[in-house]
Amino acid sequence: MKQESEVIFQPEGKHISVKNGTNILEVATLAGVDLTSICRGQGICGKCKVIIENMARVNPLTKVEEKILTSEEVSKGYRLACQAKIHESLVINIPETSRTGRQRLQIEGIETPVKLEPLIKKYFLKLPPPTLKDSRSDHDRLLEELQKKYNLKAPEVEFEVIKNLAPLLRNAKWEVTVTIWDDEKIIDVESGDQRDSNFGFAFDIGTTKLAGYLLDLNTGKVDAVDSLMNPQIPFGEDVIARIAYEDHSELQSVVIEGVNQILYNLCNKDGINANSVYEMTAVGNTAMHHLFLNINLKYVALSPYTPVIREGIDINPKKLGVKINPNGNIHVLPLIAGFVGADNVAVILATEIYKSKKLCLALDIGTNTEVVLGNRDGILACSCASGPAFEGAHIKHGMRAASGAIERVIIDPKTLEVKYQTINNTKPCGICGSAIVDLIAEMLKAGIIDICGTINRNLNSQRLIEKQGLKEFVIAQGGETSTGGDIVITQRDVREIQLAKAAMHTGAAILMKKAKVTGEDIDQVFIAGAFGSYIDPENARIIGMYPEISLEKVRVVGNAAGTGARMALISKKIRKIAEDVSKKVEYIELATNPRFQSEFMNSNYIPYADLRKYPETSRLLKKIGFYPKKPPHVM
Amino acid sequence: MKQESEVIFQPEGKHISVKNGTNILEVATLAGVDLTSICRGQGICGKCKVIIENMARVNPLTKVEEKILTSEEVSKGYRLACQAKIHESLVINIPETSRTGRQRLQIEGIETPVKLEPLIKKYFLKLPPPTLKDSRSDHDRLLEELQKKYNLKAPEVEFEVIKNLAPLLRNAKWEVTVTIWDDEKIIDVESGDQRDSNFGFAFDIGTTKLAGYLLDLNTGKVDAVDSLMNPQIPFGEDVIARIAYEDHSELQSVVIEGVNQILYNLCNKDGINANSVYEMTAVGNTAMHHLFLNINLKYVALSPYTPVIREGIDINPKKLGVKINPNGNIHVLPLIAGFVGADNVAVILATEIYKSKKLCLALDIGTNTEVVLGNRDGILACSCASGPAFEGAHIKHGMRAASGAIERVIIDPKTLEVKYQTINNTKPCGICGSAIVDLIAEMLKAGIIDICGTINRNLNSQRLIEKQGLKEFVIAQGGETSTGGDIVITQRDVREIQLAKAAMHTGAAILMKKAKVTGEDIDQVFIAGAFGSYIDPENARIIGMYPEISLEKVRVVGNAAGTGARMALISKKIRKIAEDVSKKVEYIELATNPRFQSEFMNSNYIPYADLRKYPETSRLLKKIGFYPKKPPHVM
Repeated sequence: MKQESEVIFQPEGKHISVKNGTNILEVATLAGVDLTSICRGQGICGKCKVIIENMARVNPLTKVEEKILTSEEVSKGYRLACQAKIHESLVINIPETSRTGRQRLQIEGIETPVKLEPLIKKYFLKLPPPTLKDSRSDHDRLLEELQKKYNLKAPEVEFEVIKNLAPLLRNAKWEVTVTIWDDEKIIDVESGDQRDSNFGFAFDIGTTKLAGYLLDLNTGKVDAVDSLMNPQIPFGEDVIARIAYEDHSELQSVVIEGVNQILYNLCNKDGINANSVYEMTAVGNTAMHHLFLNINLKYVALSPYTPVIREGIDINPKKLGVKINPNGNIHVLPLIAGFVGADNVAVILATEIYKSKKLCLALDIGTNTEVVLGNRDGILACSCASGPAFEGAHIKHGMRAASGAIERVIIDPKTLEVKYQTINNTKPCGICGSAIVDLIAEMLKAGIIDICGTINRNLNSQRLIEKQGLKEFVIAQGGETSTGGDIVITQRDVREIQLAKAAMHTGAAILMKKAKVTGEDIDQVFIAGAFGSYIDPENARIIGMYPEISLEKVRVVGNAAGTGARMALISKKIRKIAEDVSKKVEYIELATNPRFQSEFMNSNYIPYADLRKYPETSRLLKKIGFYPKKPPHVM
Repeated sequence: MKQESEVIFQPEGKHISVKNGTNILEVATLAGVDLTSICRGQGICGKCKVIIENMARVNPLTKVEEKILTSEEVSKGYRLACQAKIHESLVINIPETSRTGRQRLQIEGIETPVKLEPLIKKYFLKLPPPTLKDSRSDHDRLLEELQKKYNLKAPEVEFEVIKNLAPLLRNAKWEVTVTIWDDEKIIDVESGDQRDSNFGFAFDIGTTKLAGYLLDLNTGKVDAVDSLMNPQIPFGEDVIARIAYEDHSELQSVVIEGVNQILYNLCNKDGINANSVYEMTAVGNTAMHHLFLNINLKYVALSPYTPVIREGIDINPKKLGVKINPNGNIHVLPLIAGFVGADNVAVILATEIYKSKKLCLALDIGTNTEVVLGNRDGILACSCASGPAFEGAHIKHGMRAASGAIERVIIDPKTLEVKYQTINNTKPCGICGSAIVDLIAEMLKAGIIDICGTINRNLNSQRLIEKQGLKEFVIAQGGETSTGGDIVITQRDVREIQLAKAAMHTGAAILMKKAKVTGEDIDQVFIAGAFGSYIDPENARIIGMYPEISLEKVRVVGNAAGTGARMALISKKIRKIAEDVSKKVEYIELATNPRFQSEFMNSNYIPYADLRKYPETSRLLKKIGFYPKKPPHVM
């Protein structure tokens, strides 16, 4: 019998090895996973509920659990973490309700000013009651008075509103607030003056994270924000795995649950009724877009990767199960191609590349990284399968940006001593994306790795250890960490990161080649994406995530996709621009590009095979003495 | 214990008194109600199923029934008519499945030529398959090819079509038929060339009868017609009773079942799939209109009688539960006022009054009779609560126009002998509306009644009998009838008919007064309505159903409401005209009209109090010697 088991905590994706027989609460504490326990494992509080997929891999239900858990919970695989002991490797899901602190939201994005021009407008009306001499239909009465007072030409009236219009008008004593969508459709009639209650909901459906923003449509301001891990993660970490999952309608229904959860949280925070939320805008990559809408996704993943629909869509929330006002509207922004989605259109809106005179390069870093190059004269776009390495996945001690994650690292190039900073300044339990970027750059500058990404076996440091013939560099020693074990970066981790950053770099390089421009021609670089908000742009450039462009030109814009969704929520003009952008952006398919293979090989070097293209980084490496004596062969 | 019970057969509304202990099959035969029985009451065939509302009023389930009826049927109140014996007065429902012959359809209407201009159009397309160089979205591909081949500007695509567009296009090998509604929305994409399958469904929702027409939208021709009693009848015979019934959504669901039953029958007759029926038009009076749409109806019945919506409505069939193509459209024609509905708009369309130079008077006779007066320069309309007397209800031996109904009557003014004709030439079992009109006219001409409607007590005829102090005139003697009893018309029956015809006449008279015209100014009279098709226009005029206008000007147009629905089904222009008509017709409220009371009193005479207004009828009465010596006082 094995002595140790591998445990994976979802949805964080945190991996940890533990001795068999340890209970899950202890393991969670070791791993620094966020799990509530008030009684600290005495089986009293019942707060440390987790969900276990394979019940045979832990001990049977204890008497304490039989008392505390409902039979419904038991049937769904719930256990108390303090009662369940690990016998074999397993996956443990931590429900949101069992969490104390929330993860860092990472959903803040650039603020791009937009003229307030929402599609939802509210009007207050006092109607003359009917008489035998004025027995107009309720509908005619409403429309004619609307025209008289506000000069609005007979909008259509949502049928559901008509059904109960008669009692509503009479109970309201003929004083009502009329809500109109896009000057063309009455979607709500309420008793009294309700003009103040007018809200919208902007949404970014990330492969990994869902982010929602509640906006007051009378002011255009954000009232509240919230985020959740995408509940589709257990069905597949990346887009391809999700597409491969057979039951797409199940994926749709879980993501809709996530949307509704965020909506519920936002309405609670703001103290409003979800019926006052009349419109939602949504962005996401093409797979998330199709899954959200329950549109057949099969052919997006097959050559020639055609999406079913590119155009923006307006759809009734009931058709999707989203619980904003049932007569409201969901506007899903248009997309560009099979792998360049509505989120990318939103980034182009937020960065205003479409109207810029300057030549701009934008990277929206995520599980897929979309690269955009252009200005008002034309825009190229492509998509790179960068994978989830920068989000902590597939990295030995990688984790998402939660409490206890190492988020910044510097290495003294002489002593190889490491200094780090953790989120919330607690004991470290893993490394998140921003520190991963720092680490690779610092390791290069300290000569711990060379430009091929190989760890230097000849270094004399106790931080350099070897396991099963592979080198690891210790960032935090067992004594300092919350898990009690070392936090390391392995040779395999470095290779993962090289592949990820090479994918991004290749995308940018191929677009630049296509546009016949060099780094010097580029006036502005935007780094977008939740993770992008926290990285050090210089370190990112040193490791070659993007071509060497003057750092003054680099601007970190955070969750720009969310910004674009918010802009479209409050501006009809922006939606029009989104359609234009979606049509005009030229999609460059990387897989079939003849330059792809060689460019990808070159980009695997840190920062790049052809060091002449990284003069500043080359000077730095020369200065600290780590410039390679024999530069790599450029493909 | 009583010896006799009163039985009412639904949905016919046929009343009959029977000896207690008689079985229902015998009663049905006596009453001439259409009920199948192959074994003639031996309890073998199981065909004579009926539904009984109060099971305590018949004997308990017999062994035969326990064998033949399913437990579900028993729970729904099913009995075999040959097994159930009547103990007390009760209501018996005969399901459609237990009927042999169908009632006379009475849904034929005038044919008014219309240019074929349906909103549903089908296009066949061969699409180029996608390649890496042409990876347009499926949606863009479809729309762009549609534009290229047929010069159609990007119609919207129904979301349900988008959801499965990808596999459909590929399984169809890119050859598809696209169905477009109103040049603006793609509502179906089918594999292969399906242009031939393009149908529409026109529907008239009568208070008493539902009538459906299946049309080929490629030719505009009627392929099949069908009708049913309105299944709402058990909930209330007339509009007011239906409105008073508390659960309107129950009324909606039963009428939708009726619509679907007719749709099913029509598709079966024509051998087509209901998914090929893309559009439905519907007309009905305001109450039927609101109930069909499940719009709150409460205030239509309360002064000032405002409808909720006057305008025509386009609505998705799924919202109502109608089983045509789920992405198709239901167009409900506009109405005029609380008591002048979409059926009346349809009559105005069918008779083309709206564009006529001639001054026209139209009566759409039904449970409510709508009267219209006008021409292209203007139209007045009102509604009269004429009640169901002309449909056989509230008349002692009245019945609907089913087999065995007396439909024509003449009376020899000298001998008072009666000659009659029955539907299907079978033994008579009751009197239907057309014969009721004949009877009153013939009785007047024979001096059996005077112009006050009073039966002449001094007549010497064995046909004149007296029951409980009230006179009755025997039309068919027991020996001739299928029930074995006399078929009579009573003094009370005559009063019922006087009230009904007075209501209609009052409507016409008030409109004529309002328009300042006399009978001579009117160029054309249209008599519409199922019942109207069978009446003798001269007799109808003699009894004063309408003002005395030259008979050459009178035209019987049958179910003109159904004609109007069919016209709107195949012509967009007609729908536009319907909106104009609905807006321009001036509704005259009778209840508040100062002339109403006196006009109604005058109209209660047969034909009318002021005989100077009926010169032709007066001459006739003088000629046969029944002109009153002392004409009534005109109010």
